[in-house]
Amino acid sequence: MVGCAGAARVGDVAQSIRIGLIGCGVVGTGILRLLRDHAGSIESRLGAPLDIRRIVVRDASSARDEVVPRNLLSTDAQALLDDSEIDIVVEVMGGVSRAGELVRAALERGKHVVTANKALLAEQGDELVTLAEARSVDLYFEAAVAGGIPIIRVLREALASDQVVALRGIVNGTSNYILSRMQSEGSSFEDALREAQAAGYAEADPTLDVNGGDACHKLAILATLAFGARVQPTDVPTEGIESITAGDIEFAKRFGFVIKPLAVARQVLGASSPEQHSTKLDLRVHPALVPQDSVLASIPGAINAVHIEGAMLGPCVLSGPGAGALPTAMSVVSDIVDVGRNLLIGAHGRVPSRAFRGDRLKTIPIQDAGDHRSRFYLRTMVRDEPGVLAAIANVLGKNHVSIEQMFQDGSDTPVAVVMLTHEARERDVTAALKQIDALANVVSAAQAIRVEH
Amino acid sequence: MVGCAGAARVGDVAQSIRIGLIGCGVVGTGILRLLRDHAGSIESRLGAPLDIRRIVVRDASSARDEVVPRNLLSTDAQALLDDSEIDIVVEVMGGVSRAGELVRAALERGKHVVTANKALLAEQGDELVTLAEARSVDLYFEAAVAGGIPIIRVLREALASDQVVALRGIVNGTSNYILSRMQSEGSSFEDALREAQAAGYAEADPTLDVNGGDACHKLAILATLAFGARVQPTDVPTEGIESITAGDIEFAKRFGFVIKPLAVARQVLGASSPEQHSTKLDLRVHPALVPQDSVLASIPGAINAVHIEGAMLGPCVLSGPGAGALPTAMSVVSDIVDVGRNLLIGAHGRVPSRAFRGDRLKTIPIQDAGDHRSRFYLRTMVRDEPGVLAAIANVLGKNHVSIEQMFQDGSDTPVAVVMLTHEARERDVTAALKQIDALANVVSAAQAIRVEH
Repeated sequence: MVGCAGAARVGDVAQSIRIGLIGCGVVGTGILRLLRDHAGSIESRLGAPLDIRRIVVRDASSARDEVVPRNLLSTDAQALLDDSEIDIVVEVMGGVSRAGELVRAALERGKHVVTANKALLAEQGDELVTLAEARSVDLYFEAAVAGGIPIIRVLREALASDQVVALRGIVNGTSNYILSRMQSEGSSFEDALREAQAAGYAEADPTLDVNGGDACHKLAILATLAFGARVQPTDVPTEGIESITAGDIEFAKRFGFVIKPLAVARQVLGASSPEQHSTKLDLRVHPALVPQDSVLASIPGAINAVHIEGAMLGPCVLSGPGAGALPTAMSVVSDIVDVGRNLLIGAHGRVPSRAFRGDRLKTIPIQDAGDHRSRFYLRTMVRDEPGVLAAIANVLGKNHVSIEQMFQDGSDTPVAVVMLTHEARERDVTAALKQIDALANVVSAAQAIRVEH
Repeated sequence: MVGCAGAARVGDVAQSIRIGLIGCGVVGTGILRLLRDHAGSIESRLGAPLDIRRIVVRDASSARDEVVPRNLLSTDAQALLDDSEIDIVVEVMGGVSRAGELVRAALERGKHVVTANKALLAEQGDELVTLAEARSVDLYFEAAVAGGIPIIRVLREALASDQVVALRGIVNGTSNYILSRMQSEGSSFEDALREAQAAGYAEADPTLDVNGGDACHKLAILATLAFGARVQPTDVPTEGIESITAGDIEFAKRFGFVIKPLAVARQVLGASSPEQHSTKLDLRVHPALVPQDSVLASIPGAINAVHIEGAMLGPCVLSGPGAGALPTAMSVVSDIVDVGRNLLIGAHGRVPSRAFRGDRLKTIPIQDAGDHRSRFYLRTMVRDEPGVLAAIANVLGKNHVSIEQMFQDGSDTPVAVVMLTHEARERDVTAALKQIDALANVVSAAQAIRVEH
């Protein structure tokens, strides 16, 4: 039998797992609420209690929820880092610079870390995981992507025997909420954004949500886990949803589609020459037309969903709350339990943080965005003069973009010319649109949205 | 730091994980195919190769797929059990009696076991897990429920910090395929069953699929994991889908519902007296009306899905292939990888097989089926004579069952009287139906289907 000598198991005495919490905003408070309400059932699973020892905040004197033990609050992060009794540091303060310093310091001191910080992981994940592996400590981050949906754990462990072919996710709840409202109510982008803010789904500054930046961070993390490759946010061509109009939603519907904010990662064969089939990664964050009867089309409101296609598994979908204090806290504390199990049995580093062992991570070339092939939804606003449709069709044809369906909408000038193309190369579509925008009687830059199946 | 002394980690030399396979039918062959095609990526994750040492079959001379290494085949299970080099026994032979003997023998010899055998687990799981815990070996069974969907791992680990409030699943692909065909094509139950058999979704003897027996086994396993309670198949009131007619599907649609084969497990407050609120389990397997726009209504064909409601998480859905050689093999091999990680690091028993530690498992009383409250779809066939509707309505009213909607369908006698009730107690509905069946002009026993939200 392999390595079956009993590890340092902690008998029947319920030794506690000692936690230092950095950050006590919405998620931190959710963690404290969960730990209070579920203490018994967690101990029945883990065999030991979870014990919050210190809580570091920016302002220890401000008003707090009643679940926050005020005697543990402090602004002294150094004291937490120096406390040799703390086993796990939980980082939910957010931001990149200071959070990165603290996580690094914790790992360097041999403490395990659980974080919900997607921006930190997307930007410094490689460095932090390498440090954690060097120190033989765990770095877990289930809550960083898609809130309460256990997508990290599924990619890392449930699909450990499979190979991911493609992954398509709705991973930004704010964007999904906005497009869903535009779909159901016919709202403009601006009105739907205000509704999202009023409903608490969007931040006062929603930039990173609506411009795709947040989804880009999450996709970089997911693609790393799915393909065992180093993926940086800068590898991901990213478009936001700000340019989508109520008209686009309506026109897409006429073609049988719904517009959803997608993050896509696929393995494709880079056919540089017929003999040389090398694998590339197709990575994209952008709004896309998805068929009305597809699973992703049916994901409503601020809900997140990830559609995974495994080589052996086939298609599989996980959906659920992608944000919110309690779902996010749930994921954080399940990570704490996982790290706690490793602590009790001496099994730190049991599963590689990025699914694959650090020395086996690959660098897979990224497909040039221009090489991507898909159908496209195109809309351009024109003065309704003779010859304009022919001129547009002519430009598309010359650029090898063929039209599947086309209609003209509106009676006042300008009118919308709306097209669904057959599959075309993105580079050709871009070139055609540049020429179309320069045509006489075309009054504004064309809208182009990819179709994703 | 707690228990951080390095466990028996196996350096950088890739020590192999040695496996004995019992059974080499569709799933066993799928496992061998997966191990051949994904050997490299599995080793990049696990840090060691998976090595099949012996394969035990009933007939070693019969024709096999080319992925089966014929030199490993044998009919000698005892030799496999006695082989001290085998770390993990993988049982995919099916059946309860002989499979149970072999799994028990493997556990007694200190071997870890991975099985896809839901009937075995549902009937002998308590005994087998207790044995595994006593011998400090792992017993994993992801593939036993919902094929490729990682529902066991999600309940056991991803939701380790949460408490499940309710769980509703479509966990029998054959039944879902049949009802989906009846829905989309208007087929009769018999025709849809024949189609399912022709398409390879139903066995030659489909009894356990269509009568709910298979779903009952799976629900007993899921409920045990979700609630940390001992649940036996005999605890689950179970009804099949055989009595559903094309008419029922059509009438349900008029009320805005789809009929789906559900397995339900909920925690309910047993209100024996206003002061004594004790928790009970509401367990049921039966076809049910679900709203047309609900997630479960949209799960097509032979796909499985589980809707989980967590106290902190809220609603979450997992869907994917519930059967098939490769999805099932994927789950089995991911379990092997998990056990392999424990072997390499000496962390056996790291996660309790049933999510909760054996000594913390509860016995939660089961709610009497008669106490269940829901809306009901009722259909009865009557001769269209004056007074028959009034008589039916009268019986329902006397039994405290009030009607929300009602219509009569058909011109030839007998005609269908179809009703949707307000929420009613199951005991009252049962009593009313007995009296309705005895009425003059009622020509056959009434159909009653629960509505599940």
